[in-house]
Amino acid sequence: MTPKQAKYTLINDPIYGFITVQSPLIFDLIQHPYFQRLRRIRQMGCSALVFPGARHSRFEHALGALHLMQKALTSLLQKGVDISPEEQEAVQIAILLHDIGHGPFSHALENTIVQKHSHEQLSLQIMQRLDDEFDGALSLAIDVFTNSHPKKFLYQLVSGPIDMDRMDYLRRDSFYSGMLEGNINTERLLAVINVVDNQLVFGEKGILSLEKFLIARRLMYWQVYLHKTSLVAELMMTKTLQRAHELLLQGETLEGSDILVAFLKTDNLRDFSGGDALDLYLALDDTDVMYCLKKWHSHPDWVLQRLAGGLIDRKLYAIQTQTNPYQKNDTEFIQEKLRQQYPEVPLNYIFFQGNVSNELYGVKNAIQLLSKDQTIIRFDQHPSSLMNQLPHAKQQLHYMAFPKELS
Amino acid sequence: MTPKQAKYTLINDPIYGFITVQSPLIFDLIQHPYFQRLRRIRQMGCSALVFPGARHSRFEHALGALHLMQKALTSLLQKGVDISPEEQEAVQIAILLHDIGHGPFSHALENTIVQKHSHEQLSLQIMQRLDDEFDGALSLAIDVFTNSHPKKFLYQLVSGPIDMDRMDYLRRDSFYSGMLEGNINTERLLAVINVVDNQLVFGEKGILSLEKFLIARRLMYWQVYLHKTSLVAELMMTKTLQRAHELLLQGETLEGSDILVAFLKTDNLRDFSGGDALDLYLALDDTDVMYCLKKWHSHPDWVLQRLAGGLIDRKLYAIQTQTNPYQKNDTEFIQEKLRQQYPEVPLNYIFFQGNVSNELYGVKNAIQLLSKDQTIIRFDQHPSSLMNQLPHAKQQLHYMAFPKELS
Amino acid sequence: MTPKQAKYTLINDPIYGFITVQSPLIFDLIQHPYFQRLRRIRQMGCSALVFPGARHSRFEHALGALHLMQKALTSLLQKGVDISPEEQEAVQIAILLHDIGHGPFSHALENTIVQKHSHEQLSLQIMQRLDDEFDGALSLAIDVFTNSHPKKFLYQLVSGPIDMDRMDYLRRDSFYSGMLEGNINTERLLAVINVVDNQLVFGEKGILSLEKFLIARRLMYWQVYLHKTSLVAELMMTKTLQRAHELLLQGETLEGSDILVAFLKTDNLRDFSGGDALDLYLALDDTDVMYCLKKWHSHPDWVLQRLAGGLIDRKLYAIQTQTNPYQKNDTEFIQEKLRQQYPEVPLNYIFFQGNVSNELYGVKNAIQLLSKDQTIIRFDQHPSSLMNQLPHAKQQLHYMAFPKELS
Amino acid sequence: MTPKQAKYTLINDPIYGFITVQSPLIFDLIQHPYFQRLRRIRQMGCSALVFPGARHSRFEHALGALHLMQKALTSLLQKGVDISPEEQEAVQIAILLHDIGHGPFSHALENTIVQKHSHEQLSLQIMQRLDDEFDGALSLAIDVFTNSHPKKFLYQLVSGPIDMDRMDYLRRDSFYSGMLEGNINTERLLAVINVVDNQLVFGEKGILSLEKFLIARRLMYWQVYLHKTSLVAELMMTKTLQRAHELLLQGETLEGSDILVAFLKTDNLRDFSGGDALDLYLALDDTDVMYCLKKWHSHPDWVLQRLAGGLIDRKLYAIQTQTNPYQKNDTEFIQEKLRQQYPEVPLNYIFFQGNVSNELYGVKNAIQLLSKDQTIIRFDQHPSSLMNQLPHAKQQLHYMAFPKELS
Repeated sequence: MTPKQAKYTLINDPIYGFITVQSPLIFDLIQHPYFQRLRRIRQMGCSALVFPGARHSRFEHALGALHLMQKALTSLLQKGVDISPEEQEAVQIAILLHDIGHGPFSHALENTIVQKHSHEQLSLQIMQRLDDEFDGALSLAIDVFTNSHPKKFLYQLVSGPIDMDRMDYLRRDSFYSGMLEGNINTERLLAVINVVDNQLVFGEKGILSLEKFLIARRLMYWQVYLHKTSLVAELMMTKTLQRAHELLLQGETLEGSDILVAFLKTDNLRDFSGGDALDLYLALDDTDVMYCLKKWHSHPDWVLQRLAGGLIDRKLYAIQTQTNPYQKNDTEFIQEKLRQQYPEVPLNYIFFQGNVSNELYGVKNAIQLLSKDQTIIRFDQHPSSLMNQLPHAKQQLHYMAFPKELS
Repeated sequence: MTPKQAKYTLINDPIYGFITVQSPLIFDLIQHPYFQRLRRIRQMGCSALVFPGARHSRFEHALGALHLMQKALTSLLQKGVDISPEEQEAVQIAILLHDIGHGPFSHALENTIVQKHSHEQLSLQIMQRLDDEFDGALSLAIDVFTNSHPKKFLYQLVSGPIDMDRMDYLRRDSFYSGMLEGNINTERLLAVINVVDNQLVFGEKGILSLEKFLIARRLMYWQVYLHKTSLVAELMMTKTLQRAHELLLQGETLEGSDILVAFLKTDNLRDFSGGDALDLYLALDDTDVMYCLKKWHSHPDWVLQRLAGGLIDRKLYAIQTQTNPYQKNDTEFIQEKLRQQYPEVPLNYIFFQGNVSNELYGVKNAIQLLSKDQTIIRFDQHPSSLMNQLPHAKQQLHYMAFPKELS
Repeated sequence: MTPKQAKYTLINDPIYGFITVQSPLIFDLIQHPYFQRLRRIRQMGCSALVFPGARHSRFEHALGALHLMQKALTSLLQKGVDISPEEQEAVQIAILLHDIGHGPFSHALENTIVQKHSHEQLSLQIMQRLDDEFDGALSLAIDVFTNSHPKKFLYQLVSGPIDMDRMDYLRRDSFYSGMLEGNINTERLLAVINVVDNQLVFGEKGILSLEKFLIARRLMYWQVYLHKTSLVAELMMTKTLQRAHELLLQGETLEGSDILVAFLKTDNLRDFSGGDALDLYLALDDTDVMYCLKKWHSHPDWVLQRLAGGLIDRKLYAIQTQTNPYQKNDTEFIQEKLRQQYPEVPLNYIFFQGNVSNELYGVKNAIQLLSKDQTIIRFDQHPSSLMNQLPHAKQQLHYMAFPKELS
Repeated sequence: MTPKQAKYTLINDPIYGFITVQSPLIFDLIQHPYFQRLRRIRQMGCSALVFPGARHSRFEHALGALHLMQKALTSLLQKGVDISPEEQEAVQIAILLHDIGHGPFSHALENTIVQKHSHEQLSLQIMQRLDDEFDGALSLAIDVFTNSHPKKFLYQLVSGPIDMDRMDYLRRDSFYSGMLEGNINTERLLAVINVVDNQLVFGEKGILSLEKFLIARRLMYWQVYLHKTSLVAELMMTKTLQRAHELLLQGETLEGSDILVAFLKTDNLRDFSGGDALDLYLALDDTDVMYCLKKWHSHPDWVLQRLAGGLIDRKLYAIQTQTNPYQKNDTEFIQEKLRQQYPEVPLNYIFFQGNVSNELYGVKNAIQLLSKDQTIIRFDQHPSSLMNQLPHAKQQLHYMAFPKELS
């Protein structure tokens, strides 16, 4: 397809019908191997073990967020907000590439081979590479992505309390998981956005839709993202990688993807400033992790075999949860049984304890409302919003997990 | 269709696909003119002036509630709850007929010709008539409807904090109004219901779905049922009927439906204990009201003509709303202008003031949860529920309405 | 709402989410009593007796067709088709008002008080009135509607083998009736439209979508529009009006809507060139018909009472159908029984016989395809289309209907 | 989860909401590693390169077909068809496991390492293994699956012109690909099924739904399954495996999944009667294929690198299609250019030619209708069916594909 035709390229999407690619540059970015890699990285990691339909990739999510950004731009332009064609393309590129730095099973990897929060930094590094390759065509997009562009509201469309990323992933994850209650009405939210004093605001008449958005998000967190079975699968994934790392440091050899094994072998492979590490990282996707799990399923090390095999055959650990921290008595009782049944296994691989949390609404990252009289008011300070009645403290869930076969 | 075939009668429904009629008696009740009358009474009164798709009738709603009751019974029977075939039919009949006493534009009528809360009493009177006609076949259903049946949970399925009536109307009103955010996942709620100690309970793992239900209900109230334009239309409807009543008492004759005019003519036609009044009432539907509005559109009385014509041509009064009561200054300013512009019109027909309210969750009619350890706990007392953090006070909206043409 | 704001007026629609009104003139036309009248005329006549959800009005349909026209314009403009802003507004107005001449229960009325095919003529007369009222602002729209505009493709968007009218009503009727199989993918069809040699064409790659459109249409005709129960209801409606007309000519007085009765009383009230008749016509809607049916339910004339009462209480005649014409023997046998059971009733009110037909695809009104090599080819001549293998003859269904209570 | 609770296990599914597992044995089969393996085999092979959402696996499809089988059983039991509880479980197991013998990218594999049509034989072999493991509990299911059970209609529910397999995959593939036009109304089809003379029949009133089913299937074939871009991707996949096989036979070593490489190394590994080969086969899934593609992306052999890398980076060959066979002139012209540009590359790896076909309706596997007078008639012989007007010959599409970079 020649760039000229690219203007009206249509991509089928089960949620939005068609997604349109509106510029040749964006078309070329989508075609680039770095972006095509996202096809091989699932959006929801281990969740398909609980929600079988939730197999969508970061590729579709990035395109979906692009689509919502186009709708947001249309809404703002209709209201007379000044956004030049170049800025429109830049903010589209920024949202398209916002997750390009994600690795496979990011949460598990971030606890092992990649440092926390680095996927945004990696996204930036990859964008800079693409900017070089495309002769500086991405520089405005990078300004938006790094919040260096004077029009701050463009950044808020990419990363804010209610941005196109969140809108798409909530809607998409809800759609594919079958948890329809998490669905949100993106159309109604985008109808009420506006820009005042260089910041993104939501018309007051959208209050109930915003509440609905937050409640849908809360529901998706507790019912899907932090579902106890997803949680135990992700913990097992993290522990699998830790065990592999440990065995490799002890000099053992492991079969499986040589790239992933190489990452796990190095004690501290977290510096991506050198180009080579980034090259390796860009070669990594879900395939490598899954291939390792399949190999390790039959590894002689009991721990590695139990964890990797459990993920392959869906023989997950049992997990218990409660809102209050577990009493020492409770955990010690289980731990003692585990020590008796598995005398040679390090406890940290058969007993997982911790907590997860989520907050309904964060004051730090407040949603700004535009009232009928054109003043701006924080969502949590609006008299008729439920948010002004809710303590915004995080809610916690404590968990304890161990092999199901514990007698 | 013979009763035998009736067992598998399928009714097309845009929401549930097919609705099945499972007993010959229920089939006969649906065929009865009293039930067919519900086809001519819209569920949402004046709302179609704001949400054009919201034209569905109480007929579809009653069938939808029947469908959900069947699903609820299946869910309870699977869990081993003891409900005899006779009780199953009875509770289906009770929900099918729960609204059979509704008149046209009920809210407006209740403020004029029918007393408040009487539609439940009228439903009961009509059920008793049907019981006579069907040789006592509805007596068990009447027991359930009046909460005289020893299995209290059957009543709670018909009328409780989360009953089949509410479930269907929220879902249906959301569907037809296009306010998709009001949609609720009835399937998930019905999957967690159970009966303990003779009362209907919801499994603890349904907490988030229940929260979602309440938030969807809140959204539907403020965004749809109490939408300010719907509200002003309903106020105009009430005032139209009041004005007609007033003119009739003054000896004027009014064209239009003679049944409705007869109702309006009598000073106090609110006693339905005599069979004749009930006969008349059963002949009344939306057609009568609409026919009168069309006639009164050209009536010489300015008030009647402005109100009725406004409803026909959608020339509604302007309406202002705010969360705090209006100051006397504000209202007097408007009233003064109105007196000058319409010196001969009684103020109560051109100036409407008042408030509407809705509460997110009512402690009086508390939802009962069944925790994992089989104890029952009130929803608003559960530690991980948002409800325990919300003051349950009603939220209010104050309004002020008057002719748009006020200069 | 001031005209300036009207630019972004959003109307809730359960099918498309939001419908946008894009010009002050269109906003004013929607507000006009002539257009508001469409709220009181159901799109599908008697169909709600079979498909309870199918209660939508011509008002929503007209708005839906407007919405699709906007999408069609966007698709054509993106492909470089030259359509001026004035023409864009004109074609939107033409589709918005294409059905404004429809009366209540049109098919029944057309067989009695209004001449066949006249609803298009009436639409035109009403548009001309509006053109006068709006100082000539509708003249371009009238040119498009009457196919007098040089850009013939604009007319084809309003009235052609696949126009915005058909697209919306198939999708809308399918949605509300719950007959989901009639659904069509308007988005995909609109993505492939184009204009070549001043005519509307569909890109070759839309062949399967077009086939699907025609099959969906076929299904909707046979399963919904010509459903035998809808059909018998409509026949009863026609006969009701004929009987009323007959009784009135015999000098009887009938209660009910005086406007409708006036229409029925006159022997030949089919000339709408005089303004007064049009005024009366514009005062007529479903309310008048329903009010008459309710009144006639208790009329002493057995025929009128049986027909009108049957429509109110859904006591419809029995109807039989078959693909071949009925044999004289069969019909005479039934007729003889009817004569014995109802010796005093004219046979034409208790025995209905006839046929209905529909064709899958009409060569007269052929769909034009644009092939990859830019030549135009008729759909039914395209080698890979099913249409070239199907005889396009009409398919017929013969029916016979009579009172169910025939022993 | 203990078997007792398994009775009401609910699995989230984005299409049907919840899928219920109704027996402990079925629950255990789903938990078995053989069935869990299906999570790692995509239903639609390479299609996600064209329809990004189409990433669902054979696991969800098998569960979906199970769900439809439960609905079909309910429909038949309601009509009084005699099916014992054991037979009900057996036919559910038969449909659940009907695809358990599928390997990754089956179409490509079947042309290389696995013999054609063998996936059904493999399914049977795997069922027999499971039957051994579950002490003969699957023997009735195997009878149904092999059509050895006297109730032939049970087999027809699993494998017939309109079986639960086809119903689910059409609906599911339509849903995930976003090609909504392929959607079918399974509910309506299942409402009209019945059994007469030991064979599955469809009530005559389902004719239009059946037509719609066939048209939806036709659309899905031409627009999705045989989409030219999916087709070229699948051809590249086949050729990749062939090239790998060729290189291995030449003594080269290939990196990648050792299991897949082992399969490819053997000249004739198509005999699965020995248990070891089946063990290896059951260890194979999409991961192995994808891992090999990633490795071969950088293999020195130009052919392997171009094909494998093209599939990873979506740099697919260009493909042309037409309904008539290509002329020798056309193909020789291209071939000559290819020989000049790639003098050392065997032509069969850079020039693909062939055709694909699909028939709307096959007389061999005819659908049987039950007419109102209880006689059985073939769908293609019914007077009012479109099928009696269509020649049932296959429709063909000829293609020609080669590297896009051909100058």
